[in-house]
Amino acid sequence: MTTQQQTQTQAVTAETRAEVQQFYAVHMQLLDNGAIDAWADTFTPDATFSVPTLPEPMRGRAELAESLRRTTVELAAEGVRRRHWHGMVAIFPEPDGSLRVRCYALVFSTKLGGEPGLHRVCVCEDLLVREGGSLLVHRRHVTRDDLP
Amino acid sequence: MTTQQQTQTQAVTAETRAEVQQFYAVHMQLLDNGAIDAWADTFTPDATFSVPTLPEPMRGRAELAESLRRTTVELAAEGVRRRHWHGMVAIFPEPDGSLRVRCYALVFSTKLGGEPGLHRVCVCEDLLVREGGSLLVHRRHVTRDDLP
Amino acid sequence: MTTQQQTQTQAVTAETRAEVQQFYAVHMQLLDNGAIDAWADTFTPDATFSVPTLPEPMRGRAELAESLRRTTVELAAEGVRRRHWHGMVAIFPEPDGSLRVRCYALVFSTKLGGEPGLHRVCVCEDLLVREGGSLLVHRRHVTRDDLP
Repeated sequence: MTTQQQTQTQAVTAETRAEVQQFYAVHMQLLDNGAIDAWADTFTPDATFSVPTLPEPMRGRAELAESLRRTTVELAAEGVRRRHWHGMVAIFPEPDGSLRVRCYALVFSTKLGGEPGLHRVCVCEDLLVREGGSLLVHRRHVTRDDLP
Repeated sequence: MTTQQQTQTQAVTAETRAEVQQFYAVHMQLLDNGAIDAWADTFTPDATFSVPTLPEPMRGRAELAESLRRTTVELAAEGVRRRHWHGMVAIFPEPDGSLRVRCYALVFSTKLGGEPGLHRVCVCEDLLVREGGSLLVHRRHVTRDDLP
Repeated sequence: MTTQQQTQTQAVTAETRAEVQQFYAVHMQLLDNGAIDAWADTFTPDATFSVPTLPEPMRGRAELAESLRRTTVELAAEGVRRRHWHGMVAIFPEPDGSLRVRCYALVFSTKLGGEPGLHRVCVCEDLLVREGGSLLVHRRHVTRDDLP
């Protein structure tokens, strides 16, 4: 990617950026609050979500909700709170109106009565699409800095 | 909160988001720089600020300034620098023009000659109002992930 | 700096903020991805970059690229990934169209197979200028919270 190409892809409007930032804030707060069904609804019905610890991407809202509900229950039983934090959000609008996003993602983990901790440093690559006026995640690919 | 309700409350303009982000950046840099009076002036005169370690909210600029000035002096004596860091800022405009904000707040703490540290992971809920053309914090409620 | 003065300097448009945030996201992702020449091209040809561990500022793209390429090679040899993270970005437009920025900068460092770590807490002061339609760093001054 040359600097010229980057410049050309940087034509993301302030409105789009504001919308993406609001989307991620609400999206992650739903997850961290344990509002798993509402969180799953911020993906398209046929969304895929790949992580380095699973051999195949998760597919669809039901599978996403099931997986993250399990994690939420386990963390609650251990008295642990997680905070997912996106930053350095680079947005690349596609001609069809979808948005490619590449950003950094931190996960903080704090046990009740314990010290706050940095749990993960990740890179998150999303394809966001607009359906019914709202942004939704259509495809997510997460890598972890501690894993190949 | 249903997805539909979230969508309805997401009508925050790019101008509002830009203003909120600039506000928080200046607000926290004033605090971390020890410019306590200028920091206190970013609250309304009758602002309340509740934290989990105090039985009652702090009230008003004088009380806020007194409390944070004490902390600032103590940290300076220990050679410790704090950085307050807001992120995942979800903004919900109210009909009266005020802004409800729910965001994550990190506090980093670094001793001169020491290692940087993650001091706190918090959630910050603000009610921001506009007075004389500027945003001000009218009500702040902070929770800590390590406390009930 | 009085509150009134702050208010006057806060007239940064949403478009400018969106552009600065996209710029920093791409800028830091280039560095962390090891795309050093493309990263160096996000500085002006005569840019200066001062850090507390060097007696003189680095000057110009070639010197910046040389220095950061060396770091990149060393980190790769150790299996370490770095992530540079800007936040609390306060933007102050100058009459000539340049942008003074003061923000916080975190550096995360993670070894393959190891635990993620907070490596540095810094303050970054930039002067951004527009050349050929793109923002570029003309002057950068970084301080570290652990150093005087």
